[in-house]
Amino acid sequence: MREHIRFDKAAMALELLDQRILPERESFVVCRTVDDVIDGIRDMVVRGAPAIGVSAAWGCVLAAALGKGKEEVLADMERLAAARPTAVNLRLAVERMGEVLAEEQSLASALPRLIREAEAFQDADVAACRAIGRFGGELLEDGDTVLTHCNAGALATAGYGTALGVIRGAIEAGKRIQVIADETRPFLQGARLTAYELARDGIPVKVACDNACALLMRKGLVNRVVVGADRIAANGDTANKIGTFGVAIMARHFGIPFYVAAPCTTIDPATPDGDGIPIETRPDREVTHIGDHQLTPADVPVCNYAFDVTPADLVSAIVTERGVLRPPYTEAIAGLFK
Amino acid sequence: MREHIRFDKAAMALELLDQRILPERESFVVCRTVDDVIDGIRDMVVRGAPAIGVSAAWGCVLAAALGKGKEEVLADMERLAAARPTAVNLRLAVERMGEVLAEEQSLASALPRLIREAEAFQDADVAACRAIGRFGGELLEDGDTVLTHCNAGALATAGYGTALGVIRGAIEAGKRIQVIADETRPFLQGARLTAYELARDGIPVKVACDNACALLMRKGLVNRVVVGADRIAANGDTANKIGTFGVAIMARHFGIPFYVAAPCTTIDPATPDGDGIPIETRPDREVTHIGDHQLTPADVPVCNYAFDVTPADLVSAIVTERGVLRPPYTEAIAGLFK
Repeated sequence: MREHIRFDKAAMALELLDQRILPERESFVVCRTVDDVIDGIRDMVVRGAPAIGVSAAWGCVLAAALGKGKEEVLADMERLAAARPTAVNLRLAVERMGEVLAEEQSLASALPRLIREAEAFQDADVAACRAIGRFGGELLEDGDTVLTHCNAGALATAGYGTALGVIRGAIEAGKRIQVIADETRPFLQGARLTAYELARDGIPVKVACDNACALLMRKGLVNRVVVGADRIAANGDTANKIGTFGVAIMARHFGIPFYVAAPCTTIDPATPDGDGIPIETRPDREVTHIGDHQLTPADVPVCNYAFDVTPADLVSAIVTERGVLRPPYTEAIAGLFK
Repeated sequence: MREHIRFDKAAMALELLDQRILPERESFVVCRTVDDVIDGIRDMVVRGAPAIGVSAAWGCVLAAALGKGKEEVLADMERLAAARPTAVNLRLAVERMGEVLAEEQSLASALPRLIREAEAFQDADVAACRAIGRFGGELLEDGDTVLTHCNAGALATAGYGTALGVIRGAIEAGKRIQVIADETRPFLQGARLTAYELARDGIPVKVACDNACALLMRKGLVNRVVVGADRIAANGDTANKIGTFGVAIMARHFGIPFYVAAPCTTIDPATPDGDGIPIETRPDREVTHIGDHQLTPADVPVCNYAFDVTPADLVSAIVTERGVLRPPYTEAIAGLFK
């Protein structure tokens, strides 16, 4: 995968690969202001909790570069942190940048440090994904077919991916792995993004409608489930793309291991359990239309929750860059943040 | 609902409302030959097990009207019976028409009887749906929100519907019922057809992506599940639209009643259990495209199983026109066919 989040220091511009139009076209959206970055996050030019975090770090750089004073920049950063509610990486990234800013006397002196911090944040995310791949790869066996939901790949992170990082890690360790990508309605991250990036890497992938999950499991065509996360509460409850919870229930029904892969930046020790995770509702149009094609009758309401929460007791393991967490997660997670 | 399967005796033509383009446009496909009817069934101009059965009965009429001899007509009817493999109503309808044909000396003498038989078959299906509605309506409570998958409505039958018949029956009995229609990828029968026909009848309906099921159940926004069936085996195992099995697993997880509604023509006592039900795979294009819009990368394979089988032990009750069947289904179903 070519880098999909890149910062041009000469132009002071953040370039985001437009994930809304993949795989049809590869085109970058250029963000020159913090508001451009907010729009890019909210409109899902960039998505995936770690990728949102990295983009937000660069958004803070743009805020500082263009801001008239610390107060204005902090207000911009607060708006940036609120662009999407569920992923905790977004707020975490903005808070870190805020700490750097607080330590400096002026915006001028802060700017080079903020740029170094954003670079470090981006590099750390790739490194975390590679470590997740090494740890998680050990959970997969040669010949496995892994079902994944949404896109927790290179495109959802700074690179390499979390759930897809686990798959890449297993393959780099010499295992033969096939992937079934849930198409993941309504935004079709699986059909569009997971299929695109795995096919480009030569990893065998097939797309199935979300509805096929139970049948595929019943037929023995899936051995493992690996998904990413948008926020993991202190007890292991995991918010991820809508539909993940159902996959976890089906995996439990069929006795199939269900793994969550995420960097520690996705774990939120301040949220005790899943009930405390805000679930974003997204615009109706994601459900009612594909492109200009209207699917539903115009007068019928729809619901479009973007995430659901899988209770910790349905999660077989959580793979982080610091190792594989096993239940009870409250203790395992507390150990990470000691 | 205006009649969507109608036979014009003067023109000797079967007119089928084109369900592929609903709700965008209301347009009828005119079938003048048995091959037109085969195409209409295979291409899903008409779909839904009972509606396919009724259309096939009229297809037999067209075969007899145009055939050169009994042998040719029987061969045509055999091709018609094989148009789609999963729904048992199709074969049953053709077999009944074949029995009528066998009793007559000539095609000329058979034709008026075949027309009367097809009319009776169509009328009986509406009557069965209304009876299903009366029996099934008693299972719903005032204030319920019912989740349904695919379209088991007027459009899937000769009229009134099976699963939607249960909802209509409850409403006619004075109960306030709301419906959540799973959009039902890939063909979007829920988003397009269930939403369309319920909205036209003034029944409150909301469309949700298939992925929302677990979250809606967890939030208490769904009290009951009612679905149709394409074939019910002698032990109660139920083939229905892909995704039904997953809904049943989730309903069990949350302790929500899961009802199947179907006329006795959908029960196949000759198939002992779900393993004996052939599962159709449909063209990739249903998954890869919406209209002309391509969703998946061109080089990535997809899978498109059209149905799955829900094991009898996940089914709380089967509503037929002869009453509500409860487990153990082997005995209950044997009782129907004694």
